[in-house]
Amino acid sequence: MVRARAPASSANLGPGFDTLAVSLDLYVEVEVEEGERLSVSSAGEGSDLPLDASHLAARVAVEVMGHDRLSVRVRSDIPVGRGLGSSAALAAAAAAAAGAADPLAVAAATDGHPENAAASVLGGLVTATMVGARPVAARLPIDPGLVFVVLVPDRRLPTAEARSVLPAQVPHAHARFNLGRMGLLLAGLADRRRLVPEAAEDRLHQGPRGALFPEAVGLMAGLLEAGALAACWSGAGPSLLAICETTGAGRLRAEGERLLQRTGVQGRALLLSADMEGLTTEA
Amino acid sequence: MVRARAPASSANLGPGFDTLAVSLDLYVEVEVEEGERLSVSSAGEGSDLPLDASHLAARVAVEVMGHDRLSVRVRSDIPVGRGLGSSAALAAAAAAAAGAADPLAVAAATDGHPENAAASVLGGLVTATMVGARPVAARLPIDPGLVFVVLVPDRRLPTAEARSVLPAQVPHAHARFNLGRMGLLLAGLADRRRLVPEAAEDRLHQGPRGALFPEAVGLMAGLLEAGALAACWSGAGPSLLAICETTGAGRLRAEGERLLQRTGVQGRALLLSADMEGLTTEA
Repeated sequence: MVRARAPASSANLGPGFDTLAVSLDLYVEVEVEEGERLSVSSAGEGSDLPLDASHLAARVAVEVMGHDRLSVRVRSDIPVGRGLGSSAALAAAAAAAAGAADPLAVAAATDGHPENAAASVLGGLVTATMVGARPVAARLPIDPGLVFVVLVPDRRLPTAEARSVLPAQVPHAHARFNLGRMGLLLAGLADRRRLVPEAAEDRLHQGPRGALFPEAVGLMAGLLEAGALAACWSGAGPSLLAICETTGAGRLRAEGERLLQRTGVQGRALLLSADMEGLTTEA
Repeated sequence: MVRARAPASSANLGPGFDTLAVSLDLYVEVEVEEGERLSVSSAGEGSDLPLDASHLAARVAVEVMGHDRLSVRVRSDIPVGRGLGSSAALAAAAAAAAGAADPLAVAAATDGHPENAAASVLGGLVTATMVGARPVAARLPIDPGLVFVVLVPDRRLPTAEARSVLPAQVPHAHARFNLGRMGLLLAGLADRRRLVPEAAEDRLHQGPRGALFPEAVGLMAGLLEAGALAACWSGAGPSLLAICETTGAGRLRAEGERLLQRTGVQGRALLLSADMEGLTTEA
């Protein structure tokens, strides 16, 4: 039996659409063992999904091992469909538990985008993109004095729907804007004294997606007012990420809960750190 | 008398249009002294420009000091109009020599774009953008084992012309492409072992500008073939920048000269390092 564990992640950080992601210390654990026939069990988050060959962990394990005489056990703390990279983390952990040589490649191929997978595999702050058919990823420095308050609404927002609202064309000035903001964001994530709220501004995805979650703008403004250094969507949403200093983060989390209540959004606020280990495997 | 010195710079690094720049160890020096009336002298590069109140160093010094009873002396090794940030460096040095409190702000306002000015003032690899009317810049890590071979054609390519060919709208996918490549480029500039040639790819400016300098594509391909880790335009061109390891850089420079000759482009190849001091002033 092999057990693998992968952290959650928050992608599309502010201006870094399809590029930047940070791992978060919520975990999914997958055990894979040879058996008589395929069996899937699941505990925790996502355990309401069908426990059959269609389960993502089963699909990945079967693909990696080349047969389906497997027992696959999943235990997850990562909310599903909230923009916290649950499927990339699950795919990475299932690939590793099934003995894949390159779990990042498997998870990136399964998930379609490499940045969540890269954060779940490498841990920390990552930049990732496809170069041809190959995911290329690298860790970038992140200030250990930064933590994250994540607002997790109860509603789900499927990534496919969130992508369908993006425009086909954008002004050249918006493309330039995001490049400039992404530079500032990377400087600020490496050294929190340099982190200005404008570093998380974006003109490529958060605007159009606002229609799917109109309360997001007010919630992010509220997080900044309550002391967050910067705030942005987490992945394709609807979770929202506040980047903040360790000091005062507990208070900010409580304020995040109040903001959700005041805005009439069912959900909770989590205080999370970047996971620096990434994917781990034990036989 | 105050003397200030600022390095050249290469902006628009690959995907980092209007955002990333690196200082280069070619310098402009400006001396400003109170005098009877405005006098301007100039030696070295740019000494063919009119030596009157229209000279950029004079304009900046007069603006900073609030009067024109000044003697302004300029001595420059930075080729003008080649995409090496000569005007940003000159403006920064003139502002500092005239006693400006914030030479970066003066140079960014004069030059219109903050990234060349930031590289000339801060030195090293910088990310810079306007946040409202304010230039915000930060240094980013650069591997000390990287140097630059710069092909400097004899022809000038004014920035205004180079900007006029940019499209007003771009595909959303191109905006995403550049973000992904910029992340890879920053990871590779921080650690040269991570630098892949694709990190310098761009879909926002180099393509349209190719019409102004059709030989650029072949020259960049030649630089890569000759061992450069990555290659891109320098600023708005026509200079081209090859990013390479210290070892073998001399050979690459010589190959750059041969490439220019073979392509029929008059010009020279320089081997330059990132300047890590930035703007310096002595009274």
